[in-house]
Amino acid sequence: MSDFPSDRTVAVLGGTGPQGRGLARRFAAAGIPVVIGSRDAGRAQGVAADLADATGGSVSGADNASAADEGDVVVVAVPWDGHRELLTGLAPRLAGKVVVDCVNPLGFDKQGPHALAVDEGSAAQQARELLPESTVVAAFHHVSATLLEDPAVAEVSTDVMVLGDDRDATDLVQALAGSIPGVRGIYAGRLRNAHQVEALTANLISVNRRYRAHAGVRVTDLPD
Amino acid sequence: MSDFPSDRTVAVLGGTGPQGRGLARRFAAAGIPVVIGSRDAGRAQGVAADLADATGGSVSGADNASAADEGDVVVVAVPWDGHRELLTGLAPRLAGKVVVDCVNPLGFDKQGPHALAVDEGSAAQQARELLPESTVVAAFHHVSATLLEDPAVAEVSTDVMVLGDDRDATDLVQALAGSIPGVRGIYAGRLRNAHQVEALTANLISVNRRYRAHAGVRVTDLPD
Repeated sequence: MSDFPSDRTVAVLGGTGPQGRGLARRFAAAGIPVVIGSRDAGRAQGVAADLADATGGSVSGADNASAADEGDVVVVAVPWDGHRELLTGLAPRLAGKVVVDCVNPLGFDKQGPHALAVDEGSAAQQARELLPESTVVAAFHHVSATLLEDPAVAEVSTDVMVLGDDRDATDLVQALAGSIPGVRGIYAGRLRNAHQVEALTANLISVNRRYRAHAGVRVTDLPD
Repeated sequence: MSDFPSDRTVAVLGGTGPQGRGLARRFAAAGIPVVIGSRDAGRAQGVAADLADATGGSVSGADNASAADEGDVVVVAVPWDGHRELLTGLAPRLAGKVVVDCVNPLGFDKQGPHALAVDEGSAAQQARELLPESTVVAAFHHVSATLLEDPAVAEVSTDVMVLGDDRDATDLVQALAGSIPGVRGIYAGRLRNAHQVEALTANLISVNRRYRAHAGVRVTDLPD
């Protein structure tokens, strides 16, 4: 598995939320230049300063639009509620870029978590429809934000399922996943099979509640 | 995690297919009495005789209806195509029993595997609608039939996600999964979250094609 090229900047939209912050922290710790994007540029700059301090890496903060401009690879880690609106607005800026969608459309009620129906099939397929000039990859759905953000966790012992229809792009995102110590980026199918990967997060939340864990997934029986 | 009670008979409907045969082999090897069910009783008896020889366990064969009668726990391992028809016909015989659905509604085309839409949400939810007097649990979706059937594979290093709405039933099926060396049965949510667990098999098939593996899934970060 190849290394992620260290001259590529990774933007994390929604980078002030737990998942985005956790991913940004690990990417920065791996020496990848990171831009945190948020609706609130000031908030993004604050989180960026904290992460730069914590990791010794190169982390800056900006509003989501500026972050999208700066990123060579753009990770979308916003809540599902804001997914469509954000991507619709940023489509021209994201043209020609690899966009990594890690959004899980979930609902919660008295019986716990459940997968939401998405007209396009999945968040990743919605992104593909909204961003026809970008190359959309789905990844990072199952990595615990709590573990990513915990400086005491040296290795995050989980795999990242990477889905997409463009081999160069999935290879690149597999390498990005592999920049996190302990993580393997595993190719896990085409974008049309993204729904169940996103939705499986509901099952992992059920696991967490039953076992008091921060569950992730390892794919078994792979060659070394 | 408790042991599966050894006085309970497990029937495997569709037990002459690879998945059913593989599960039956492992249950029998664990000392659980097994009945193989098939549309063709003679074929079921032939497979049963082979498995009894191979494992030294108690394995008999019968038509699906007789197997359903004999089983205390009834595993449904038929192809998705025959799922509705089989369960509709057997509903009275399955009343009061724990029915374990391990059917994956998948389609295949030039782009490979994909999840099929199911009106009821999932095969397991369809089973629940067709079997209102039974307790339906979903499990065993991701265990490689090839590994289950390979006598050289002493331990099947994978987890089984177990879903259902009745705690006693999911506990029982977790214990059944745990009877297979190397396997843990993990509670992974309510039946309404079965779709993505079934559909994830499409992703694992994509993994198998890319990496030439018999991929399964381990849930990470669980307490011992």
